[in-house]
Amino acid sequence: MRYTQNWTACRWDPTGETVYPHFPAEVPGNVQYDYMQFIGLTDFQYGDRVRRMEETENWHWMYETHLTYEEEPGKEIWFTAEGIDYRFDILLDGEMIWTQEGMYTPVQLDLTGRARPGALLQVHIHPHPNRGGEWAEYRAVADQSCKPPVTYGWDWNPRMLISGLWQPAYIETRGTGTIRSCEPFYTLNEARDTAQLHFETDCDAPVTYTLTDADGQVVYRGTEPDCTVEQVHLWWCNGQGEPYCYRWRAESAEDCREGIVGFRTVRLLRNKGAEVEPDGFPKTRYAAPITIELNGRRIFAKGSNWVNPELFFGRITEARYAEQVRDAVEAHMNIFRVWGGAGINKPAFYDECDRSGIMVWQEFMLACNNYRDSAHYLEILEQEGRSIIRQLRAHPSLVLWCGGNELFNAWSGMDDQSHALRLLNKLCYELDYDRPFLATSPLFGISHGGYLFRYDDGRDVMQVFQQSHQTAYTEFGVPSLSPLETLKRIIPPEEQFPIRETEAWTVHHAFNAWGKTRWLCAEVLEHYFGESRNLEEMTERSALLQRVGYQAAFEEARRQWPYCSAAINWCYNEPWMTAANNSLLAYPNIRKAGYYAVRDALRPVLASARIPQFDWEPGSVFTAELWLLNDSNESVSDTITATAEIDGRIYPLGEWITAEAAPRTNLAGPTVTLTLPETAGLWKLRLTSAHDGRESTYFLLIRSEDM
Amino acid sequence: MRYTQNWTACRWDPTGETVYPHFPAEVPGNVQYDYMQFIGLTDFQYGDRVRRMEETENWHWMYETHLTYEEEPGKEIWFTAEGIDYRFDILLDGEMIWTQEGMYTPVQLDLTGRARPGALLQVHIHPHPNRGGEWAEYRAVADQSCKPPVTYGWDWNPRMLISGLWQPAYIETRGTGTIRSCEPFYTLNEARDTAQLHFETDCDAPVTYTLTDADGQVVYRGTEPDCTVEQVHLWWCNGQGEPYCYRWRAESAEDCREGIVGFRTVRLLRNKGAEVEPDGFPKTRYAAPITIELNGRRIFAKGSNWVNPELFFGRITEARYAEQVRDAVEAHMNIFRVWGGAGINKPAFYDECDRSGIMVWQEFMLACNNYRDSAHYLEILEQEGRSIIRQLRAHPSLVLWCGGNELFNAWSGMDDQSHALRLLNKLCYELDYDRPFLATSPLFGISHGGYLFRYDDGRDVMQVFQQSHQTAYTEFGVPSLSPLETLKRIIPPEEQFPIRETEAWTVHHAFNAWGKTRWLCAEVLEHYFGESRNLEEMTERSALLQRVGYQAAFEEARRQWPYCSAAINWCYNEPWMTAANNSLLAYPNIRKAGYYAVRDALRPVLASARIPQFDWEPGSVFTAELWLLNDSNESVSDTITATAEIDGRIYPLGEWITAEAAPRTNLAGPTVTLTLPETAGLWKLRLTSAHDGRESTYFLLIRSEDM
Repeated sequence: MRYTQNWTACRWDPTGETVYPHFPAEVPGNVQYDYMQFIGLTDFQYGDRVRRMEETENWHWMYETHLTYEEEPGKEIWFTAEGIDYRFDILLDGEMIWTQEGMYTPVQLDLTGRARPGALLQVHIHPHPNRGGEWAEYRAVADQSCKPPVTYGWDWNPRMLISGLWQPAYIETRGTGTIRSCEPFYTLNEARDTAQLHFETDCDAPVTYTLTDADGQVVYRGTEPDCTVEQVHLWWCNGQGEPYCYRWRAESAEDCREGIVGFRTVRLLRNKGAEVEPDGFPKTRYAAPITIELNGRRIFAKGSNWVNPELFFGRITEARYAEQVRDAVEAHMNIFRVWGGAGINKPAFYDECDRSGIMVWQEFMLACNNYRDSAHYLEILEQEGRSIIRQLRAHPSLVLWCGGNELFNAWSGMDDQSHALRLLNKLCYELDYDRPFLATSPLFGISHGGYLFRYDDGRDVMQVFQQSHQTAYTEFGVPSLSPLETLKRIIPPEEQFPIRETEAWTVHHAFNAWGKTRWLCAEVLEHYFGESRNLEEMTERSALLQRVGYQAAFEEARRQWPYCSAAINWCYNEPWMTAANNSLLAYPNIRKAGYYAVRDALRPVLASARIPQFDWEPGSVFTAELWLLNDSNESVSDTITATAEIDGRIYPLGEWITAEAAPRTNLAGPTVTLTLPETAGLWKLRLTSAHDGRESTYFLLIRSEDM
Repeated sequence: MRYTQNWTACRWDPTGETVYPHFPAEVPGNVQYDYMQFIGLTDFQYGDRVRRMEETENWHWMYETHLTYEEEPGKEIWFTAEGIDYRFDILLDGEMIWTQEGMYTPVQLDLTGRARPGALLQVHIHPHPNRGGEWAEYRAVADQSCKPPVTYGWDWNPRMLISGLWQPAYIETRGTGTIRSCEPFYTLNEARDTAQLHFETDCDAPVTYTLTDADGQVVYRGTEPDCTVEQVHLWWCNGQGEPYCYRWRAESAEDCREGIVGFRTVRLLRNKGAEVEPDGFPKTRYAAPITIELNGRRIFAKGSNWVNPELFFGRITEARYAEQVRDAVEAHMNIFRVWGGAGINKPAFYDECDRSGIMVWQEFMLACNNYRDSAHYLEILEQEGRSIIRQLRAHPSLVLWCGGNELFNAWSGMDDQSHALRLLNKLCYELDYDRPFLATSPLFGISHGGYLFRYDDGRDVMQVFQQSHQTAYTEFGVPSLSPLETLKRIIPPEEQFPIRETEAWTVHHAFNAWGKTRWLCAEVLEHYFGESRNLEEMTERSALLQRVGYQAAFEEARRQWPYCSAAINWCYNEPWMTAANNSLLAYPNIRKAGYYAVRDALRPVLASARIPQFDWEPGSVFTAELWLLNDSNESVSDTITATAEIDGRIYPLGEWITAEAAPRTNLAGPTVTLTLPETAGLWKLRLTSAHDGRESTYFLLIRSEDM
């Protein structure tokens, strides 16, 4: 039996001099959120209010509960906390019984003979690791911390150092039939039609295992922890087949555990064509492998970087995970890169990905920093790494471990010799032999960026991507202003327009986030469209550029297949209401223009145009190369009709009857041309597919230099 | 007490049908060598005779001895074999008592109560791992073998699959005072002037430890296995200080062990200037770190690739190691890359490097192959890896582990996901935390090649290196014909000249080694000098190009410091008499022209000229940029005088009074020019240093296109 407890919390003075008032604490949750409710800071998204929480960073906190449970003769009493963020002591009736650093390693304490109903259980939460002591330079202070780096602040995330009982916690009575753990492992034969399944169980009593297929039919039932599954239904990612999951259940006389198992193989292969590079002598190595092979099939990985849907991790709900994963499926995505800055999600996220066929690239909690090899840091990292690997390795959706984000770049300063990454490689090798491991992203051949529609050198996103030759684009973004309703909700009315560098706009990352004028990029909007007359117009223009930019980048990455094997934009969601961001979903779950662009650009079969640039001079000759993109598992042929629509007039550009595109193969087609009229303004190129009747629409601009 | 044994060997028929004659076997040694003596194939270097040994590849062999030792009451009897190559069973009086695969893991067998003087001890050597069974494609058959890959044949090494008791073997009587092992470990404080030394000892009796300094003064004596060493003399590599070694001795009542300890710290750092690359977006990672930092000082690693000085590893002597290491010291080298193809040397090699200040980059026994991740291969690799790391980690000269040679290139096919390399990384992390580990060479930024004086695209070695921008040149070579006396010794007289593609020339790798006409490169000699009249002239011309080429490449790599941090040519020595090779030393230990060029080019303080190319048109304007290269630990200033000597006439080109070059810093100086005369032929550029009176001489060519 499990008994959840009612908790309170308070700020706590370790000297004992000051006693602070208690307030109700949600578990799972974060004490900072509870405190905000208590002091009435309920609308922290508005203006610059979020900064009021900075003063709490170095506070101690104390959770308290008086235990409530039913005593049962002969049973043990255990306290389990599935995750406590971050450094904490546990006290029973005032006596310290446990101390730990690390939020991903569950606490399981045997209180038998020590606890009684009504006993006082306290969790003392220490301040966050902070090398500088006080508010030092942005995130550098976190280089000895195994918390999600983003909590120290990022260029779209306010600094919000949360802590507390972020995962479920409860009192449990245990008998001899308690199943302390049960985990399935399997091997597939070479033909991938027969699996040897094995359960590793920690229980003192006999256990019966049941495996059922997706229709509920029993595949195996017995007390042996080993069985053979024949005519295996494989787990496939979205777009390649069904994410088929079997269900297992392990039952003793008094307990049960259950879960799913998805049978599949996954490897990282070197990209086609990259193996013979570089040419000539002196010669360095070829690019790192980054093509995902699922069940023997090379997959183009298309998706997005998952950050976190809430500032307060403890408050993320299953429903939020579910709706955001569902949105990704609808957008034809097949992968999330769970970016190292965000740390590890709650179990419900991975469950949802398993069910939905969204592959997960999971990073450890290192990002954009030089995590120094101190003995203490490595000890906590090893403890946390082991816990994380054990918790997640049974998920079929999990296809890749990665040490962390951008660690081999100038702004981080780690490298192949960093012991933290060598340790994570070793742990993954030992605990999860079959799953690929990357030290970081990007590795050689893979790239991050760009993050703008237009660069200071005058190139736009189309030019940048068409001139690139990378094995994978695992981060790239196009920013836009957040939806109008969000802006009106967070920016005080008097500051809304004209947009200027006020505290509210800056705290919400429209300015000074990455470069002085990012992510607002007002100068880019002005370059193409001139001055905006009001916030509505500026928001619309910004949305248009995000739409055009994401469409161009994703389609170009697909055209570069199979040399390029991934397009994973930065970023998918956001944890609070930003004013401007590269995200596809605005907080909490509002689809931005970029979302729709990606949903269109990732259709498995797509008529696509390689367009040299966004803006064209009046009277110049426009060209576009037609492509049929096919990353489905079917052969496809199509008839693609191209037309331009300029200032209300339709220009037919031609028709392309394609050859047959084999499964997961693209076809390059003819180039269409048009001498553009002298009329400046937005216009559209439209491709119509006879195959599915769908249209691909490209917004373009005729623009005089002297506009 | 140790008792060496007299051994015989024979070919052995596992079916028992055929009985083959016994012959004397040397231990340590290789049974194939003993067999060659037995059948009278004593001069296997001549002609194509070496190929006669191919038929023995799949044979079984049996070593035999009747034990001789003195029985001592109360003592245990042990058989120790420090290394047996490669797959073997050990039988005592006909009963199998041990079986093993792997030549680097010592065998230690307790024979107490089982052996008696006169007992028959046999070692049955199985055939070599050979995926194809029979002679399959060159070295691909070795992808599941932990033997030195070179034994399967290379482009300068005949296939010679050796085996046998290649390391000492003996019977030992052991009492309670036997010291089974003793190994020193230390940590240095941050100032590197105090060391905490700790001995890990496996002995059942009390042990007394003595540490003496290089002058024989006792630093510590006591029974505690821990001591503090103050005012530490650090171990330095050649050219940076003294390779200072302390001696330790561990004594029990009846046994002792001894060795050296050299105190130093070593790290691999990212190269100066490489950290901010690549520029712009999309952006991949920066280059892998490859600058050796010894005792806090960034070092330019200059040296050579060590292969093996004998085809028969078991027969390599301490004297051979000593003379070849001494030659490296004399040539101002500070590093050997012990190339993965060669495997691991005998202990005497590392001892000599410790004493001589030659740093060792040690690779595991993987080279130019795709070592597949079978469970069996990984098991043997783990066993052998653990043994190797434990055997070598106490050597101060050992600065770097590396997984193997060119594994991330098209001709190998391994990559970051290969389990064999992830395993080696893990083992090094666990057993030798402080020593850097590279997965392979080259990694991103590092390069291998080129290997020619002149390329098919017309560029010569000067052009190739001046156009290169790499963090380290860890292999590059310039081939030449072997010395005349070697050629006369191995090529039948009637085949010696004109050189043509006979069996003797081909077996000795003048043809078809790497490309049809390598390593002879007759077309390059002819391009510059026209047809040679005899073998003497051809050998001289070939030697000249090797000299010019190595001088150019080494000096250019030094000029690229600190962006470039290593110049390690391919290769240093050779295991038999090649006809043509990139080596600096011809077998057994003859200095080639390349050796002298490298010895000149690696002088710590050097007047150097960056010369655009080797051959110049008559009447053209010659230019050379003057440099002062200083990789010593001293500040240096110099006055450098440049003159040309053409057709007996001296042309003064100018004098450069340099600024002061800080320790380990180069200075670029003025460019000197000269309008060349119309006379075709070899000429010399000469730089004279006032600093040390030494001259740097560059051979150059005036050559008409219609020559």
